[in-house]
Amino acid sequence: MNEAMTVAGLGEEGIIALIARACPTAGPGMVIGIGDDAAVLNATAGRTVVTTDLLVEGTHFDWRYSSPADVGHKALAVNLSDVAAMGAVPGLFFLSLGLPPGTAVADVEGFAQSMGALARASGIWLAGGDTVAAPAGWVVSITLHGQCRAEPVRRAGARPGDLLCVSGTLGEAAAGLRWLAGGRPVAGPASAWVARHRRPEPRLALGQWLAEHGLVSAMLDLSDGLATDAPRLAAASGCGLDIDLDTLPIDPTLIDSFGVAAARRLALAGGEDFELLFTVPLDRYGALVGVPVTEIGRVTAAGTRWLDAGHEQPPPRAIDHHFPLS
Amino acid sequence: MNEAMTVAGLGEEGIIALIARACPTAGPGMVIGIGDDAAVLNATAGRTVVTTDLLVEGTHFDWRYSSPADVGHKALAVNLSDVAAMGAVPGLFFLSLGLPPGTAVADVEGFAQSMGALARASGIWLAGGDTVAAPAGWVVSITLHGQCRAEPVRRAGARPGDLLCVSGTLGEAAAGLRWLAGGRPVAGPASAWVARHRRPEPRLALGQWLAEHGLVSAMLDLSDGLATDAPRLAAASGCGLDIDLDTLPIDPTLIDSFGVAAARRLALAGGEDFELLFTVPLDRYGALVGVPVTEIGRVTAAGTRWLDAGHEQPPPRAIDHHFPLS
Repeated sequence: MNEAMTVAGLGEEGIIALIARACPTAGPGMVIGIGDDAAVLNATAGRTVVTTDLLVEGTHFDWRYSSPADVGHKALAVNLSDVAAMGAVPGLFFLSLGLPPGTAVADVEGFAQSMGALARASGIWLAGGDTVAAPAGWVVSITLHGQCRAEPVRRAGARPGDLLCVSGTLGEAAAGLRWLAGGRPVAGPASAWVARHRRPEPRLALGQWLAEHGLVSAMLDLSDGLATDAPRLAAASGCGLDIDLDTLPIDPTLIDSFGVAAARRLALAGGEDFELLFTVPLDRYGALVGVPVTEIGRVTAAGTRWLDAGHEQPPPRAIDHHFPLS
Repeated sequence: MNEAMTVAGLGEEGIIALIARACPTAGPGMVIGIGDDAAVLNATAGRTVVTTDLLVEGTHFDWRYSSPADVGHKALAVNLSDVAAMGAVPGLFFLSLGLPPGTAVADVEGFAQSMGALARASGIWLAGGDTVAAPAGWVVSITLHGQCRAEPVRRAGARPGDLLCVSGTLGEAAAGLRWLAGGRPVAGPASAWVARHRRPEPRLALGQWLAEHGLVSAMLDLSDGLATDAPRLAAASGCGLDIDLDTLPIDPTLIDSFGVAAARRLALAGGEDFELLFTVPLDRYGALVGVPVTEIGRVTAAGTRWLDAGHEQPPPRAIDHHFPLS
């Protein structure tokens, strides 16, 4: 490739300018944005949420299965999902980007345009960051700020008797990744699964609505899969869960293609659902009529049980997606 | 190595617990810290500065020359240096850490203890972060928040007639790295240069003092070297600089060991000085008597000139430390 078309040819200032053109860079409360040693923000009254996620090539994305535009979307989406899980409204973000010096400028352009599009759609803007050479592969680190209009919803807060609910459907992102890894043609229902792997849609509006109407006692976003994340909510709340495996929201196409057992494994441990898992006090449950969420269990005093038609099952094997042992 | 002694054996929750033990984790305004989807901060009145720096193995550090404890210190120090350059007081930080699964737990312990020691010494605390597998090498991303007690000092703000000053001495960190790369024994004066490469000391107290006494019109921290960073300050301020090469503060041991010309090149373009470069209105200069800073030039209307005994020299070759072309 012509060196002038690589990031080494473009140089740090050129990369920063490219990203700043692709993303919104102004918003309320910004005093100093991109280009100084630090951003300066005017503190507004109230509570700020801050979340940060690090994505590394080879762990979180693979160029055989995702484009730079997919990664630009996803890196921001996973942070937005964390803000959604607090019931907060996202605001500004910082982007640190590590790039191999031979990276094509067109790839950075695709990444930045897609990130900018999601930022614009989410009403958020870029406040600063860092751009460095990363010899062994792309590194994307985002820190996202948000504002709480209501009391932030923690993982702690579930009480025995509350209902356990989840938004959307589970397992499709993991199915999409496995489909791509299997080298099968992406068509028919697989297109939707692959899209959920490549471009997750954070549940911002739902998270804010649940928080602002005081409907939830605890909430988190499902990034590692229900088998890992549900026990986290239970542990943080100091309570237990009864989870009905036969009520898990799984898209019928997943069951048709993989069978019930494999589809359920994907829904439990596949990860990257970026749906909201939350608990609802019984007397608030009526407010959820018509909202696309599914009741999948109940909060108990202690101990997480996985039930199939009322019969206790062995706990599903959780996967440490961050440090898998094999 | 025994798998139980690696981060893959310890698992994500174990790594987070290790880091949380090593670093202070509480401070003013924290509502929710480590362990939820996001941190929640109670906004205090006034202005917040936010800076973020990404360090990647192979670009920013090399295990042949630095220990995990060195990297833990340096990753936080370079962020503290940015806050110092705004004249602000650092507060909480977020740490995202990418680790190869085979990383020894003892190495993460060394990294975290050293970071924790600098955090404690700087009066700052860890508010959250992310921990992921990074197959190709360590990745350290830090986002640091600070508070402005005075008006934040920008890069823009220098006015013709102001004096250009720099703290400390220049070139030693770069000399230390070259010394290590040359495989020479680290003894005598080289010990001090190597220490400046491995464990830079951010100029927090000086930055705050300059800002709070209204002594400076513009400021940045020297991370890429004077040859790159001085023109940045001039460009941001829309003015020029006359820089006197014969006044650059260079430690005599550097000149003794490398000669004047090479020592000056290190001071101009070596990078990683983490000293403060700032401009002082003439009528404030008296307040700097006794402060360890050196006047190295003057702000002019336009054009940066490099002078040696009053004679203009060709501009020093700047190095793009982020995306070096060769």
